[in-house]
Amino acid sequence: MAKKYVYFFGGDKADGRADMKNELGGKGANLAEMVNLGIPVPAGFTISTEVCTYYYQNNKTFPPELEGQVNDALQRMEEVMKSRFGAPADPLLVSVRSGARVSMPGMMDTILNLGINDETVKGLIEQSGDARFAYDSYRRFVQMYGDVVLGLKPETPDEEDPFEVLLEAKKKARGVSLDVELRPEDLRELVDEFKAEIKRRKGLDFPEDPRDQLWGAIGAVFSSWDNLRAIAYRELNNIPDHWGTAVNIQAMVFGNMGDGCGTGVAFTRNPATGENIFYGEYLMNAQGEDVVAGIRTPQPINRLQKGDSPEISLEEEMPGIYRQLEDIRVKLDHHYRDMQDIEFTIQKGRLWMLQTRAGKRTGFAAFKIAVDMVKEGLIDKETALLRVDPDQLNQLLQPIFDHQEKKKALDGGRLLAKGLNAGPGAASGKVVFNAPDAEAAAARGEEVILVRIETSPEDIRGMHAARGILTARGGMTSHAALVARQMGKVCVAGCGNLDISYKDRSMKVNGVMIREGDRISLDGTTGEVINGALQTRPSEIIQVFHNDMKPEESIIYQDFQSLMQWADEVRRLGIRTNADQPDQAAVAIFFGARGIGLCRTEHMFFEGDRINYMREMILADNEEGRRRALDKLLPIQREDFVGIFRTLKSYPVTVRTLDPPLHEFLPHTEKELFEIARLTGKSPEDIRAKVESLHEVNPMLGHRGCRLGISYPEITEMQARAILEAACRVKKEGIDVHPEIMIPLVGHVAELKNQRAVVDRVAKEVFQAEGIEVTYLVGTMIELPRASLTADEIAQEADFFSFGTNDLTQTCFGLSRDDAGKFLQTYVDKKILEGDPFQKLDRTGTGQLLEIGVQKGRTTKPDLKVGICGEHGGDPSSIEFCHLVGLDYVSCSPYRVPIARLAAAHAALKNR
Amino acid sequence: MAKKYVYFFGGDKADGRADMKNELGGKGANLAEMVNLGIPVPAGFTISTEVCTYYYQNNKTFPPELEGQVNDALQRMEEVMKSRFGAPADPLLVSVRSGARVSMPGMMDTILNLGINDETVKGLIEQSGDARFAYDSYRRFVQMYGDVVLGLKPETPDEEDPFEVLLEAKKKARGVSLDVELRPEDLRELVDEFKAEIKRRKGLDFPEDPRDQLWGAIGAVFSSWDNLRAIAYRELNNIPDHWGTAVNIQAMVFGNMGDGCGTGVAFTRNPATGENIFYGEYLMNAQGEDVVAGIRTPQPINRLQKGDSPEISLEEEMPGIYRQLEDIRVKLDHHYRDMQDIEFTIQKGRLWMLQTRAGKRTGFAAFKIAVDMVKEGLIDKETALLRVDPDQLNQLLQPIFDHQEKKKALDGGRLLAKGLNAGPGAASGKVVFNAPDAEAAAARGEEVILVRIETSPEDIRGMHAARGILTARGGMTSHAALVARQMGKVCVAGCGNLDISYKDRSMKVNGVMIREGDRISLDGTTGEVINGALQTRPSEIIQVFHNDMKPEESIIYQDFQSLMQWADEVRRLGIRTNADQPDQAAVAIFFGARGIGLCRTEHMFFEGDRINYMREMILADNEEGRRRALDKLLPIQREDFVGIFRTLKSYPVTVRTLDPPLHEFLPHTEKELFEIARLTGKSPEDIRAKVESLHEVNPMLGHRGCRLGISYPEITEMQARAILEAACRVKKEGIDVHPEIMIPLVGHVAELKNQRAVVDRVAKEVFQAEGIEVTYLVGTMIELPRASLTADEIAQEADFFSFGTNDLTQTCFGLSRDDAGKFLQTYVDKKILEGDPFQKLDRTGTGQLLEIGVQKGRTTKPDLKVGICGEHGGDPSSIEFCHLVGLDYVSCSPYRVPIARLAAAHAALKNR
Repeated sequence: MAKKYVYFFGGDKADGRADMKNELGGKGANLAEMVNLGIPVPAGFTISTEVCTYYYQNNKTFPPELEGQVNDALQRMEEVMKSRFGAPADPLLVSVRSGARVSMPGMMDTILNLGINDETVKGLIEQSGDARFAYDSYRRFVQMYGDVVLGLKPETPDEEDPFEVLLEAKKKARGVSLDVELRPEDLRELVDEFKAEIKRRKGLDFPEDPRDQLWGAIGAVFSSWDNLRAIAYRELNNIPDHWGTAVNIQAMVFGNMGDGCGTGVAFTRNPATGENIFYGEYLMNAQGEDVVAGIRTPQPINRLQKGDSPEISLEEEMPGIYRQLEDIRVKLDHHYRDMQDIEFTIQKGRLWMLQTRAGKRTGFAAFKIAVDMVKEGLIDKETALLRVDPDQLNQLLQPIFDHQEKKKALDGGRLLAKGLNAGPGAASGKVVFNAPDAEAAAARGEEVILVRIETSPEDIRGMHAARGILTARGGMTSHAALVARQMGKVCVAGCGNLDISYKDRSMKVNGVMIREGDRISLDGTTGEVINGALQTRPSEIIQVFHNDMKPEESIIYQDFQSLMQWADEVRRLGIRTNADQPDQAAVAIFFGARGIGLCRTEHMFFEGDRINYMREMILADNEEGRRRALDKLLPIQREDFVGIFRTLKSYPVTVRTLDPPLHEFLPHTEKELFEIARLTGKSPEDIRAKVESLHEVNPMLGHRGCRLGISYPEITEMQARAILEAACRVKKEGIDVHPEIMIPLVGHVAELKNQRAVVDRVAKEVFQAEGIEVTYLVGTMIELPRASLTADEIAQEADFFSFGTNDLTQTCFGLSRDDAGKFLQTYVDKKILEGDPFQKLDRTGTGQLLEIGVQKGRTTKPDLKVGICGEHGGDPSSIEFCHLVGLDYVSCSPYRVPIARLAAAHAALKNR
Repeated sequence: MAKKYVYFFGGDKADGRADMKNELGGKGANLAEMVNLGIPVPAGFTISTEVCTYYYQNNKTFPPELEGQVNDALQRMEEVMKSRFGAPADPLLVSVRSGARVSMPGMMDTILNLGINDETVKGLIEQSGDARFAYDSYRRFVQMYGDVVLGLKPETPDEEDPFEVLLEAKKKARGVSLDVELRPEDLRELVDEFKAEIKRRKGLDFPEDPRDQLWGAIGAVFSSWDNLRAIAYRELNNIPDHWGTAVNIQAMVFGNMGDGCGTGVAFTRNPATGENIFYGEYLMNAQGEDVVAGIRTPQPINRLQKGDSPEISLEEEMPGIYRQLEDIRVKLDHHYRDMQDIEFTIQKGRLWMLQTRAGKRTGFAAFKIAVDMVKEGLIDKETALLRVDPDQLNQLLQPIFDHQEKKKALDGGRLLAKGLNAGPGAASGKVVFNAPDAEAAAARGEEVILVRIETSPEDIRGMHAARGILTARGGMTSHAALVARQMGKVCVAGCGNLDISYKDRSMKVNGVMIREGDRISLDGTTGEVINGALQTRPSEIIQVFHNDMKPEESIIYQDFQSLMQWADEVRRLGIRTNADQPDQAAVAIFFGARGIGLCRTEHMFFEGDRINYMREMILADNEEGRRRALDKLLPIQREDFVGIFRTLKSYPVTVRTLDPPLHEFLPHTEKELFEIARLTGKSPEDIRAKVESLHEVNPMLGHRGCRLGISYPEITEMQARAILEAACRVKKEGIDVHPEIMIPLVGHVAELKNQRAVVDRVAKEVFQAEGIEVTYLVGTMIELPRASLTADEIAQEADFFSFGTNDLTQTCFGLSRDDAGKFLQTYVDKKILEGDPFQKLDRTGTGQLLEIGVQKGRTTKPDLKVGICGEHGGDPSSIEFCHLVGLDYVSCSPYRVPIARLAAAHAALKNR
């Protein structure tokens, strides 16, 4: 039997199912599923992703069996839809759309109204009774086909679409301003002018045979899998290149066939807030792309959403259709047990569903829908956990505008405009008017707001770089809103009052002129656009932490706690935090950290007098001089640790001894240098000489970490004393303190042995003097390849390991974090690296060093406690790897603790 | 049965054997062996090294069984020597000496004449009939015991020995200048004064009971295993601390009992030149330490050695003894099949042998003796190979003085003096008068000659640091001569004409005043000391290479070729060289290299105009500008490769593409900067800005290696083109050329794939244009941990691997070679590292990366060619490791090729 490449759907039966996304893509699989659920869907068929693979492997040709299967499917379509493709009377028109395993909105190409030619257009006029509609459809088809299949689409945003130019010229010639004001003859003329333009530019006759049109469109959609913006999108979303896309050919239904026609998109729940409210938009007498593209701002779907606005909702306009849609909404929401993003078209009073798919949502919404669906009994807790991307939790913690300050700004008349609250959150920044400028400014470290009339897929990188996005056109399902929600960006969309001039790099808003570089603020939760910068204040959850809000007042907080508890029930990894101060530690504990995995002592040496004592120590001529300076630092460090131990109570605290090279503490400016000379009584020349003598060619690989403690044992001694004296004192206060002293940059067991001996000796002395003993551990960072490779030896001297994956990545790759920026993007662009290995742990290379380290360490000590305290400890993919290699805990920055908790739960669930 | 700790030797039977060095130490094992060979040896016994281990593990106490075993052995000694320990009449005196597995000359303590007290001294007078001798022995014993056992020995060279002070005072009081002029009463008084001094300084009564003396001495010798100079010596010679020393207690025989007495040391062959000539020195009426310590310059042992000098040889003085000694010499040389270093004492006309051991020798001698013994049928070729330390071969290649220049210097009256030719070779440098100064000067990069009246074990580090050593006193077996030979240092010893003032830091030599910092030259082959610096010229072997000498004229060259051929017969590893120029490559091929393992292209960019083109390339604003500059470099590079390919002929040539960061090529001074501005027409500000923009925090981990070729493919393209065009051209000349293109700093297979694609594309173009094809390989350096860990992936794109162990060590340890100098010595001092891992490959850590890399690489490609081109490729221990992990070849600098050949043979022989 020949291989099955084509899957039919229509009537009440489909070849495919929802779980066949790998073969049919998301759109095709869900169209099949809807048909099987008895939901009205225009008939059609899906060409499987296998054909895409074949296409790219065989020099852009199709498997020989394909043509026959397409013809068979087309025939079934004709039977179900009771009209014929290419027939002059009552012709069947089709859409040709891409559909990958996961949605890549707007990234690939689509052709609508396919099947029209000079013959069939007459049938269409007859069928619709509307020559204007028929010629408008023809005009749209030729334009789309010319753009997508024949390659007339402009390559940069600045170029104009040649068809748009002709359209504008026609409107001007007819003295009208709107498309709909053009007469059928005008549109017929435009069709001819479009075809002439294609002939002029490409030397091609427009294909009249609908089958030629169809095969051209199929090829163009497959080809669009490898266009630049699709590639960029896949990179950003880690979608493998080899997945390929399916192609869906579906009977056209028309929302623009006059009265009783319309089209819309909706979400089964609110995609921005997650509320269980039917949420959508529609346009009467329009095609679907009009809603998505943001060219006309659509109407609300129901009364609730409409609120006080003078618009007319679908619920009011077509109550019967609305009720039918509402039923479908509930059916789909419950069937898929997830919020759906649906598209529908009403053709002459009949409802057709064109798409359903899991809806993109903000972090807020993902989180709220997941928790709500558990409450509603639709999903279990574990499914809820997997529905929330850990990184999205960030949004719950992101600042909102300070209420007082915002009120003052509004009262002061600084409100510029109000748009749709498409991406919740608060953002302030300088205005830029195009995506490359946003990227460039972000690269310089500036915070920018990207302002566009409407966004398009070409803008993705710029949107990623911006703090917030503001558009003049488009609704809640416009490109800008969709992408912003997915990225977790603050976004105000469809803000009609903006009068943007790209040329002048400025916009007029209600009479106020805003130029490039001026600051504005966006409240993505309310849709307000405010002139000037605004202070932000903490999110609700953070307010609860600060006792500025009671837990019972905040539903967000309560839901957040529920989700975190569910995560705790399934995760195996412990969660600690990287914190150097009591206040940081308190935040982390509030978020669920159960210990400090990395307390860096060097940060403590920069404040106040400390830096001077530190410099005195470094500049000392001998051990005695160093000890004198260290004696001054001792009580200060001890107080620091007392504060931390009191905050952490019985949770363990891992303190790392001094790590950075000493030159980091020395003065860098002449002024500082003279100040230090004055303080130490040394000559500026001596100090300059010392600074120079400490200069290193490769400080990352230099005199730092335990190498300092070995050269100057008195430093380790002072630090051990400060830690252990502090521990003794808080123990006397009744706290069951658990200090863990961590020696950095160990590459050889003898280094750890040497430093451990210092700590153990000091411990004895301290316990003697304090008259009390404290249980303490001595362990090491594993942050050098040699440490991993000899972990069996090192474990003999270590009570615990903590992987320092920042340095481990640097040494494994031979890549300096400080210098890699200059070429890492080239590496990603040329597909040499998938991404920045300092953000997401490189499992193939660096990961082996973790595996080896854990395995060898536990060969020596089967119960060896092993954690991670590099920045990867807060990255979900890296956390999963830590789970897989058997780490005991991850440690991350305080605000990433919730993310780590959820990611640890994901890791446990996905790898059962 | 109780554990055997004590091994007796004496009469004609010994408990031990020569192969029991681990238990008895070298000295004890060989004393036992001599007894078993029927050679006259004073009776005695050896306390085994196990006792030393016990002693250190048990808080410096002895095993309980020891005392009984010592008493038993003492009794057997008394029986054989027919005298009693501690007996007032005819007392037995003993020596107590250390003896480790390998000789550590002068590093540990010795006590002689033990057993004398106020009672037994009378028996000694009776026995010898010489009160002066008896009291002199007593005086020496108390002094030695006081120094060594009771701790009065000065700790620094500047302090005076309190006993010497008293001795000098006595001589002054008696108005005499020599020790021998003191009368017996003077010496008896000195004994009392010495004891009083001990009482005064230490509050101790001198032990009168010989058994107390004995146990004190045994403890002191064991303790001396851990004195600072012994530790330093072990570090320098890689002797493990846990080996411990044995202690030898042996009946004293006296070379200083008047007429018919004497003592000497000799070598069975010449230890400096290796000639098969009995070579030694003796002193009449002296104890052995007088010869070794260099206090009196001894007499030659035979007529041959004496030559024209007015001295009297032992052959003339005591012909019978000499004949007996000559017989023993042949017996030992043949029995041990190796050159022996022997000590003997003649007591009243009777010859006693006190020691035999393998003699220390220069590299010259080691090599000559090994080759000669093969010719003599004493040893086989493989034994001969193992007799030569690969590093010693260096000496055969080291320069000698230019004959013409030296003749001119001598004719010009610049000969200062002539001493003993104790360490062959030529050295010039600034004079320093103490070891710390020598160390400090060497650390500053200065070449110095260390001048001492005599050297002592405290001077070892300074001797190591100096280029040459000159002493005023001591013979061919003095400390200076011995240690210099072992280190391969140029040394002139016993140069009596030097009048050295340590205080004034100057010396007078035949009326010429030489001050600290003045330059002198030493010819260690002739013993000449010459005023001022002298040019050197190549060694004989190098002269053969340059056709300045015919092979048949040089025995050294012929013997060298023999040894190298034997090495080639057993080694498995191939040998290549690291060479960037045809002349370097030619040297390496002469020495036996069979290919280039690393040709660095960057060195080619610094000469002449090239650096300007290079800078033009770097400063270009775009690819076009870079290509323009690269076009100028192309023909130059191509010519370089033509030269190299012509030299290497059919041997493979591995060329590494550009490796260092671009900023290394940019101007560093303002003057250069302005010059470049002039040449490129850019403004100095622009150039300065570019230099600054290329600055890196950690250049070692920065934008270098293949990262450059990936950012700027046009560089790799130009280099590939230069290599392959050159290859095509020499192939047209009839050479079977084998270029291998090596991509540096690969950490990810995609990097290699990217660069390989560039090379392969260029190759196609070049072969097309040249109309000829050349077989070429593309491979990679494995010099990052990630490369080793993912070698299975990388091997998919690599035709060969070459380990870059310099960078691999840096990244494995996280240690910058440029910065490690500041603390590496501390690490060695504190025993954290055994030595510099950049010199000797760290097998435990970095070694694993080699093993993993080879194993994973060959999993993908079983026949993958793997080599090493880091500096470890010329280090014998590292070469052995390369052999063990299955590398195909090592590549090293041209002058280390012979060393590598021999080391590869050693590796094969030792690991069969």
